[in-house]
Amino acid sequence: MEYLNQIGMRAKEAKPEIQFLSTQKKNEVLRQAASDLVRHAEEILLANALDMERGRANGMSQGLLDRLLLTKARIEGIAEGLTQIAGLDDPIGEVIGMKQRPNGLLVGQKRVPLGVVGIIYEARPNVTADAFGLCFKTGNVAILKGGSDAISSNKALVACLRNTLENCGVNPDALLLIEDTSRETAAAFMRLNKYVDVLIPRGGAGLIRAVVENSNIPVIETGTGNCHIYVDESANLDMAISIIMNAKTQRVGVCNACESLLIHNNVKDALLPELCEKLLAKNVEIRGDEAVTALVPEAILADEKDWGTEYLDYIISMKTVCSVEEAITHINKYNTGHSEAIVTENYSHAQKFLDQVDAACVYVNASTRFTDGFEFGYGAEIGISTQKLHARGPMGLLALTTTKYIIYGNGQVRG
Amino acid sequence: MEYLNQIGMRAKEAKPEIQFLSTQKKNEVLRQAASDLVRHAEEILLANALDMERGRANGMSQGLLDRLLLTKARIEGIAEGLTQIAGLDDPIGEVIGMKQRPNGLLVGQKRVPLGVVGIIYEARPNVTADAFGLCFKTGNVAILKGGSDAISSNKALVACLRNTLENCGVNPDALLLIEDTSRETAAAFMRLNKYVDVLIPRGGAGLIRAVVENSNIPVIETGTGNCHIYVDESANLDMAISIIMNAKTQRVGVCNACESLLIHNNVKDALLPELCEKLLAKNVEIRGDEAVTALVPEAILADEKDWGTEYLDYIISMKTVCSVEEAITHINKYNTGHSEAIVTENYSHAQKFLDQVDAACVYVNASTRFTDGFEFGYGAEIGISTQKLHARGPMGLLALTTTKYIIYGNGQVRG
Repeated sequence: MEYLNQIGMRAKEAKPEIQFLSTQKKNEVLRQAASDLVRHAEEILLANALDMERGRANGMSQGLLDRLLLTKARIEGIAEGLTQIAGLDDPIGEVIGMKQRPNGLLVGQKRVPLGVVGIIYEARPNVTADAFGLCFKTGNVAILKGGSDAISSNKALVACLRNTLENCGVNPDALLLIEDTSRETAAAFMRLNKYVDVLIPRGGAGLIRAVVENSNIPVIETGTGNCHIYVDESANLDMAISIIMNAKTQRVGVCNACESLLIHNNVKDALLPELCEKLLAKNVEIRGDEAVTALVPEAILADEKDWGTEYLDYIISMKTVCSVEEAITHINKYNTGHSEAIVTENYSHAQKFLDQVDAACVYVNASTRFTDGFEFGYGAEIGISTQKLHARGPMGLLALTTTKYIIYGNGQVRG
Repeated sequence: MEYLNQIGMRAKEAKPEIQFLSTQKKNEVLRQAASDLVRHAEEILLANALDMERGRANGMSQGLLDRLLLTKARIEGIAEGLTQIAGLDDPIGEVIGMKQRPNGLLVGQKRVPLGVVGIIYEARPNVTADAFGLCFKTGNVAILKGGSDAISSNKALVACLRNTLENCGVNPDALLLIEDTSRETAAAFMRLNKYVDVLIPRGGAGLIRAVVENSNIPVIETGTGNCHIYVDESANLDMAISIIMNAKTQRVGVCNACESLLIHNNVKDALLPELCEKLLAKNVEIRGDEAVTALVPEAILADEKDWGTEYLDYIISMKTVCSVEEAITHINKYNTGHSEAIVTENYSHAQKFLDQVDAACVYVNASTRFTDGFEFGYGAEIGISTQKLHARGPMGLLALTTTKYIIYGNGQVRG
């Protein structure tokens, strides 16, 4: 596809300049971009209003409209994000583990940019500036493909950011937006491995599956989270209720929210009445197995499909189990490799759960909602990897880098 | 495909046991496997003889026949490889960077197996035992798909290794061989992301391209190496000749052999007569640009295709350039991201080459032949990654692991 090849070639041409920008220059650009976004807020809001109008006309849900909406305060928040990225340590250039080999060769690994990072996402204009900031700080060229519903907002944001780059004397092709939002272009973008070093999808399960199935570019799978909390026989039940309420209701539409609860049989009677009263008061629908529906009249009977569903909504599934082993087996069958928690006072059960649950983040006695680059202390996040290669769990700046071996010799040849 | 689903399900069932084997048990199995291979050498050699016979009948080249051939000494070498792997440190279980967050959460990353590792390779039976050893040491289940030309050897090797596992009381499904060597099965194997966590192709450019284009499993690209040596204006020419002869002729069929030479114009007259005399004495065919053919009567004129070709043979391409910058530009256009070297006495040129050449391994004043897990001190190698995600360059045991976040709390919820 000629349009995408052009984009790819522009990225390739910009790459050598962008990867060698000094930390000082990169931070200067990021701070300037933050101030320019605020200064041009009116134009961006006007563009966003077009997207919102189209969204409403197309019957977009309230939740999606809220994700699409920009306000002056939100633009200030986006700008603040860029300023924060400017304040983070630059990982590029560090040389790791340089060692002298017996033959005198000095072998070390230098941290370098990935090169060109592709990001495919849905109608969340904040991702546009965020992804640019993280890629730019790590010396990568970013090619963005946002959802069609946010195209006017994205064009306005990217125009503003590219303008900043140009005014700072940097090749504006450090940031490229694919303005053609058709499915065909998205599909072709996923096959652009000639130009793109890594592709990161950010969005719902359908988008991520499409990328994994169709991409010939190395992909970092992110995000979908069918997260469980298991309340062990020995749990402190007040703590369990506090953690469950937080993980389920503090924000329901996020990937680290709790979607499914597993309860040891011996504590269901003591736990469920108070817990469910609180959940119902927050309008959470309860879908339980027969033991749960017998105890909670408002609960409806769950079916097999519920165990595998990421609701992203005011719904929770509940299942009773006879042991920590049964809980672990259930979780390893239905989870999406994101975040899983046990509430327990039993040392061996805690250790067993940490060991045997196969997920990016496994918690003892804490809310799954902490799975987040900021909460883990990275100061930023490009997404949460649910795959095992390269990066797993919240990804900060390091996930956008690779290493190359640099070898200093003085004439060594192999015997 | 039902056959592959069965294989996948067996791998999945074996996974929980294999990932938690103690280091002691894993080493015991590896040492026993080494001794069993030697003890059953006769059976393995008989099976290999069938492959060799078929290979000869099919007109297989001498080079490929040599890769396919097993001898008693080679089986002892393979066994020695397993014993060496037993002697390496076990990376599994280490917890990296556990830190206390301001809210009291303890967050760390525990090194764990990838899970199920798929390996697709050509007719090299030594890879069978090697891949098993590396996967097993790191707690991974291995699913192997070797070339059809080696199927009898592979069956015999895998039967012997599975027998060892069983005798040691370990689920033999830690090692699974796909015995159906059809292209359809290979293609279906690349789509088995329900069961396989990572797919590593080992072999020629065609195999690797097929895997990258068709796999829905995360892939680690390995191996193809169109490696260059650039002789700078300031080079020590004796050193240059020694490095070039080593990188080109010490072993021609390997991915880190030199395929292409770039020579600064100002040293071509001093370098080429002696160098080419030595290359020609080793029966190396020289394909050069016009400046080269003018100086070396035996050289034939190279065309555009030569610059991009990994010969894996007694052939070298040669091009003259006017500067280190021109050399870097040429290399970044034609290389495969493997190993690149500069021979120079100029400090700034050395640093520029290290910085700007985009490859897994970049050398100053040493032979590209050192790109190897053993030479880099890893004690083992599962392949050489030429991609940027997860691992880049020679991959030791660590490349077969991932991490998971483990988080210890005492009731923390997110505000």
